[in-house]
Amino acid sequence: MAPQNLLTIAGTDPSGGAGIQADLRTFAAFGQYGTSAITALVAQNTLGVQDIMPSTPEFLEKQIRAVLDDITIHGIKTGMLYDATNARTVVKTLKSHYGNDTKKMPPLVCDPVSVSTSGHTLLQPDAVGVLINEVFPISTIITPNKSEAELLLSHQQDQKFEITDLEGMIEAASRLLSYGSKSCLLKGGHITVTQEDIDGACKQHQHIGVVREGLLEENMEILQLEGGNVGQPDPLVVDVLHQGNDRVTLYVRPHIESSSTHGTGCTLSATLAAELGRELPVDEAVRSATAYTHRGIETAYPIGHGHGPLNHLHSITKTYLPVATRTNPYPFTRFLIQSTRTLWKQYVEHDFVKQLGRGELRREAFVHFIKQDYHYLKYYARAHGLLAAKSTRFNQIKTSANIILHIIQEIGTHTSFCKQFGVSLEELEATPESAATVAYGSYLIDVGLQGDTSKLTMALLACLLGYGEVGLWLKKEASKPESWVNLSSNPYVKWIEDYSGPEYQEAVKIGLKTVEEQALSDPPSETRLNEWCEVWRKCTWFEKCFWDMAFTETAYNSRQQA
Amino acid sequence: MAPQNLLTIAGTDPSGGAGIQADLRTFAAFGQYGTSAITALVAQNTLGVQDIMPSTPEFLEKQIRAVLDDITIHGIKTGMLYDATNARTVVKTLKSHYGNDTKKMPPLVCDPVSVSTSGHTLLQPDAVGVLINEVFPISTIITPNKSEAELLLSHQQDQKFEITDLEGMIEAASRLLSYGSKSCLLKGGHITVTQEDIDGACKQHQHIGVVREGLLEENMEILQLEGGNVGQPDPLVVDVLHQGNDRVTLYVRPHIESSSTHGTGCTLSATLAAELGRELPVDEAVRSATAYTHRGIETAYPIGHGHGPLNHLHSITKTYLPVATRTNPYPFTRFLIQSTRTLWKQYVEHDFVKQLGRGELRREAFVHFIKQDYHYLKYYARAHGLLAAKSTRFNQIKTSANIILHIIQEIGTHTSFCKQFGVSLEELEATPESAATVAYGSYLIDVGLQGDTSKLTMALLACLLGYGEVGLWLKKEASKPESWVNLSSNPYVKWIEDYSGPEYQEAVKIGLKTVEEQALSDPPSETRLNEWCEVWRKCTWFEKCFWDMAFTETAYNSRQQA
Repeated sequence: MAPQNLLTIAGTDPSGGAGIQADLRTFAAFGQYGTSAITALVAQNTLGVQDIMPSTPEFLEKQIRAVLDDITIHGIKTGMLYDATNARTVVKTLKSHYGNDTKKMPPLVCDPVSVSTSGHTLLQPDAVGVLINEVFPISTIITPNKSEAELLLSHQQDQKFEITDLEGMIEAASRLLSYGSKSCLLKGGHITVTQEDIDGACKQHQHIGVVREGLLEENMEILQLEGGNVGQPDPLVVDVLHQGNDRVTLYVRPHIESSSTHGTGCTLSATLAAELGRELPVDEAVRSATAYTHRGIETAYPIGHGHGPLNHLHSITKTYLPVATRTNPYPFTRFLIQSTRTLWKQYVEHDFVKQLGRGELRREAFVHFIKQDYHYLKYYARAHGLLAAKSTRFNQIKTSANIILHIIQEIGTHTSFCKQFGVSLEELEATPESAATVAYGSYLIDVGLQGDTSKLTMALLACLLGYGEVGLWLKKEASKPESWVNLSSNPYVKWIEDYSGPEYQEAVKIGLKTVEEQALSDPPSETRLNEWCEVWRKCTWFEKCFWDMAFTETAYNSRQQA
Repeated sequence: MAPQNLLTIAGTDPSGGAGIQADLRTFAAFGQYGTSAITALVAQNTLGVQDIMPSTPEFLEKQIRAVLDDITIHGIKTGMLYDATNARTVVKTLKSHYGNDTKKMPPLVCDPVSVSTSGHTLLQPDAVGVLINEVFPISTIITPNKSEAELLLSHQQDQKFEITDLEGMIEAASRLLSYGSKSCLLKGGHITVTQEDIDGACKQHQHIGVVREGLLEENMEILQLEGGNVGQPDPLVVDVLHQGNDRVTLYVRPHIESSSTHGTGCTLSATLAAELGRELPVDEAVRSATAYTHRGIETAYPIGHGHGPLNHLHSITKTYLPVATRTNPYPFTRFLIQSTRTLWKQYVEHDFVKQLGRGELRREAFVHFIKQDYHYLKYYARAHGLLAAKSTRFNQIKTSANIILHIIQEIGTHTSFCKQFGVSLEELEATPESAATVAYGSYLIDVGLQGDTSKLTMALLACLLGYGEVGLWLKKEASKPESWVNLSSNPYVKWIEDYSGPEYQEAVKIGLKTVEEQALSDPPSETRLNEWCEVWRKCTWFEKCFWDMAFTETAYNSRQQA
C-alpha cells in the first residue's frame, strides 16, 4: 500500500528541530511522503531566532500550487504563517484548489505558531485575526499551547485571558472551538496538573474521557520495583481535546524534565496531519501524536547548545534484509549466498562435482559418497519431521510430509545406484557413518531442537539449493560448445539428470519461495539475521566437507589397501 | 551512540523529491540528524521547475552560521548553489568557520547541480567558475553526471567536451579531478555500458576495481529461474570513481527502466555525506550510496504526474516495541501486560487471591490448588530444562539450572503446606492431574519444543510475574489502614510472605531483565511480537483457569459428597 502524501506549510529551521524540517522528519518517521511550502526562511538554531526572510505571497502560492497541482495530498498542516498576507495567501490558494467546500479538502491541522520558545515573534500581530477568521474555520483541528491560546482569546477583548489550571484549559478549549475549527487540542506542557485535578474535572464534566500514556496502572506493582516516575507520578501534563458538544478528552502523561523540547509543537501537529491523513478519528490521532511526541522528548539526545530537538526517529529502525525488486526477486537467498561467496563456490564447484561432470570421478569415491549420503538423508528426513512438529499450519505440515516422501524417493535412487555399483542394501545399511555425516546430520537435528522453524529452514537450505545449483550448472556447462562436461558416456549421468531435472528443480523453487516468504513475513532483527547466516555458513561448510570426505576417506582406504 | 549531524546547503523542492527535502529524508533514513541551509526557494514538482526565489547571500550566511555556530557537523553536502554570489558565500562562510585549513572541515560532498531533469537552469553561468575554482578545491568528492561533467570540462575551453562511453567517463573523471577535489564520482545514468566495455577498461587500466551490485554472479543459476534481468544483464549502468593516482573503481549495476528518478543526484550525494560523515572510506561510501540510490529507484512507487521521487524509506521499518525511557524502564513487559489488561486483572485479582488475602479461602480449595500446583511445577521445571537445552551460552544454561533449583525449593514449601493441611507426600504424588494443570503444563512443553528460547521465555513469564504481583499487591494492600488483607490470623500467611519476600522478588527481577534484554537484543518483527503476545495471553488465561479450577473442582467434590 502506498504511503499517504502530506503537505506542511510553515517556516524553516536550519538547525533541523522545528519548522518544515521537523515536519518532514516526522512524516518520514511515519513512513509517509512529505511535501512542503515555505512561508519564510528563518535563521534559527537551538538558542533562538536570529532573523526571518519571508517568502513573497506570490512565491508562497507558487510553492503550494507546485504541490497541489501535481500530487494528491491526504493531510495538511500549517505552522508559522508569519504575517497576514501570507496567511491569507495560504487560505486563498487552498480554497482556489479545493473550492470553497472544505469537505473536498484533506484534514487540515493548524498549529497557530506565534512566539518562539526563545521569545521571538513568529506571527505578526496583523495575522492573528486572519488565523481566527479565515484559517480556523477550514481547520479540522487547531493546536495552541497556553500562550497561543491566551493570545488568541485576548484578541479584540478588553481583558487578557489567562489559563492557570485544568478547568481553565477546558474553558479555553471550548471558547477557541467557537472560532470555527472542528476540534481544538489545547497543549498543557506549561501547566502543572495533579491526579486530583483530573478526578475533579471528571466529576465536573459529563462526557469527559481520560487517556493515560506512560503511566503505570494498578496491578503493575511488579514494574514499580526500580526508579522511574513511579510512586510519585505528579506533576502530570494534560493535553485537552475539545470536539464540541461537551466532548472533552484529557491526554495525561508524566511531566518530563528535559531541555530537548525545541519543535515539540511542530512535531505534534505534523503527527496529527499524518494520522488524520490516513483517516484516523481525531481522538485516536491525538492519542498517537501525543504518545509519539512524548517519546520523542524522552528519547532525545543532546544537540546544540540550547533547547535541542526531539528524537523523531525513535519509532523506526534499519531494515536488515534487502527488499525484493524487479531485478532481484529472491533478495534474501541472494544475500545468504553472497554472504558466504567463497565457501559457496568451494561447495558447488567442488572438484568432486567437476570430476563427476567430466565422468572421471573415481568410482570408489562416488560409491562412498552415495553410501554416506544415504545415511545423511535419514537425518535430513528426520529434520523435516521436526519441522512438521514445529509448524503451526496444516499447509506447512503437509509441505514437510511431501518433502519427506521426496527424500524417500531419492533414497530409492541411491539404492539403485549402489546396486549398479555392486553394493547391496545390506552392505549399504551396514556401512558405518563417517564423522562428516554425523556432524552435518546431528547439527540439523540440534538446530531443529534449539530454534524455531525459521532457523531449521535455514539449516535445510544449503543442501536443497546447492544440489539444485550443481545440477543446473553442469547442465548449462554441458550445453556449451566443446564443453568439459560429458553427458554422453558418463557413468554418473543419472545423478546429473536427477538434480537438474524438473522434479528436483520444482522442489528447489518451492524451497526458495518458502524461505523468501518467511523472511518477508517475519523480518529478522540484526541478531537473528546473523544467526541465520551462521547456520547457512555452517551447512555450506558441512556440504563442502562432505565431498572432501568422499575423496580423503577413499584415498585413505586406497593407501590402507596398498 | 548518538547519530552524526549532517548539513545540506541546497535549493528546495516543495514536491519533496529533490533539494534539501530529499537530502533530509535521506539523512533520516540513515538514522542521522540533518540540518540545512537554503540557497534558493524553488517552486518545482515532478513535472518541472516553475520559478526560483534565491536567498540573499546575507541570509544564506545567517542560515549556515545558525547551524555551524550551534551544532557540531560531521558531513556536508552542497547541491544547487544557484549563482556565483551564493556559491562564494558558502565557501566564505565555511572557511570563516573552519579556517582556511580544510583538514578541520568535515567531509564535503559537492553535487555540481546545474540543469534540472526538465531542462531548467539551476546554476547561473557565472557560478561555474566559482564551483571549479573555489568549491571543488575544498571538496572531498564531487558528483557530476554526464551533462554536468561536460559543462564543467567545456568551461573556458574552445571545444565542447563530450562523453559517449566508459573510456570517455574514465578520462573525464581524471580531468575533473585536476580541478582540485580529493575524488570524483562521475555518474553514468545516461551512458549505456556493456560487460565487454568493463572487461576492456579492466585490461586498459592498471589499478581499476569493479564493484557489482544487484547483478547475479556465477554459481547463482538457481536464482535465475524466473524473470528479472537475468540472462540479459545488459545494458549496465556504471558510475566511475576516480581517487587520483590512477585509482579507479567502477560501480556496476543493471539499468532500470523507471520514471522515478527525480532527485537521484541529490539522494546519492546526501548518502555520500552521511556515509563519509561516519568516517567510511570514500570507496565504501560510494558503494553504499550507489546501492541505496539504486534500491530507491527500484522500490519507488508513483508520485506526481512527471518524474517521481525515489523511495527513500526502503531501508527503514517501524519499530514495534516501545523504547525504554526514564519513566518506563521495562517497556516490553509493560506492553505485554497492557496488551491483556482485562485478563491480567482477572488473574492477579482473582477471587481466589482476594479470599486468600482475607484468610477466608476454603481450606479445601487451597489444598486442591497446592496439590495441582505441585504437579504444575514439574512441567515448569522441565520447561526450564528445555530452555537450558535450547540455550547457546553458559550463563543462560546456568540461569536455567538455578531456576530449576528454586522450583525444587518451592516444591519443599508445597509439601510442607500439604503436611500442615494433613496431606501426605504419598497422597500428593497420587493426586491425579486436573485438566487445567495438564493443559497449562503441556502447553509450556509444546511451546518449548515448537519455538526458540524467546517464545519459551514468554510462556514462562506469566507465572513468574503474576505470583510476584499477587504477593506484592497483597502486601501493599495489607499495609493500608483498616485493610481488607489480613496477615495476623491468616492460615495462608506463609504463602503471601513467600511470594512477596525478597528471594522470590529477586527471581522476578532477574526474569524481568532477561525478557527486556531479549526483546532489546533481538527486536521482534510484527509477526513475532504478535506470536509472543499470544503466548503471553494464553498463559495468563491458563493462570486464571488454574484458580478457577481450585474453586469449581472442589465445589463439585463438595456436591458429590453432599
